Amino acid sequence: MTECILGYITTPNIEEAKQIAKELLLDKLIACANIYPKVYSLFWWKGEIDKSEETILIVKSKRNLKQKIVEKVCSMHSYECPCIIFLPIEDGAKPFLDWIISEVN
Amino acid sequence: MTECILGYITTPNIEEAKQIAKELLLDKLIACANIYPKVYSLFWWKGEIDKSEETILIVKSKRNLKQKIVEKVCSMHSYECPCIIFLPIEDGAKPFLDWIISEVN
Amino acid sequence: MTECILGYITTPNIEEAKQIAKELLLDKLIACANIYPKVYSLFWWKGEIDKSEETILIVKSKRNLKQKIVEKVCSMHSYECPCIIFLPIEDGAKPFLDWIISEVN
Repeated sequence: MTECILGYITTPNIEEAKQIAKELLLDKLIACANIYPKVYSLFWWKGEIDKSEETILIVKSKRNLKQKIVEKVCSMHSYECPCIIFLPIEDGAKPFLDWIISEVN
Repeated sequence: MTECILGYITTPNIEEAKQIAKELLLDKLIACANIYPKVYSLFWWKGEIDKSEETILIVKSKRNLKQKIVEKVCSMHSYECPCIIFLPIEDGAKPFLDWIISEVN
Repeated sequence: MTECILGYITTPNIEEAKQIAKELLLDKLIACANIYPKVYSLFWWKGEIDKSEETILIVKSKRNLKQKIVEKVCSMHSYECPCIIFLPIEDGAKPFLDWIISEVN
């Protein structure tokens, strides 16, 4: 396993995804972000199946910054309870993993 | 590591992805789904490299529901051997993880 | 945990993603690939926040082929330091996992 993680964050639109990504980058909490412009989401919300178009923000960072990423995203996010989850990166091209570590706090 | 997992499922089109997502939600097997409308897939099939457009269905649920999710998806899916894989969610925003657990069986 | 992994690779465009996918398939280093045509990327590069449109190449393979995948991708990739990371597949539909293993070296 590496020191790095992949963050998976949903936002209502591209603008909010870009704003969040920029702030995370400026705070040196992530090394990079990939924004998937449009997904169709279905979900349980207050007892009903709801649906909406969303944007997915994938970020790459270090494991020990997870909590700070959650705090920063929640401070900016327009949702009450945003999807912010982290997947372990078990391995990868060493230069890229080293680059992630060199770019964040 | 959390009790939650991210499911990654391929389908031939958005309609089938939405149908599967709705059934999984109705059966309380997942809390939410993100559908990526169009990807280009390349794959080995019966000795040849084949290609097709597909739709990706990402679902979030609890680890102990994986087998039921596989059974439900296979019962509805138009493929002989659909891609249904699960990635571990190692961490995330606690309210969101709690919400996943509260929304599924 | 399974013997399989999900690879997450960024490329500048669909053509390069398709070329890399085909070579990985021909060398029996992956069983299949899903190409996400367009994402917006933001990242630190040489001290500045840079941005560009990219394509994401998701591949599915066996854990013991990771290093060969990295070598092959780096030999073809147009980036100096491409994002090539691997996420663990903890579980999935057994026929599909068996299929991955049967299709690669």
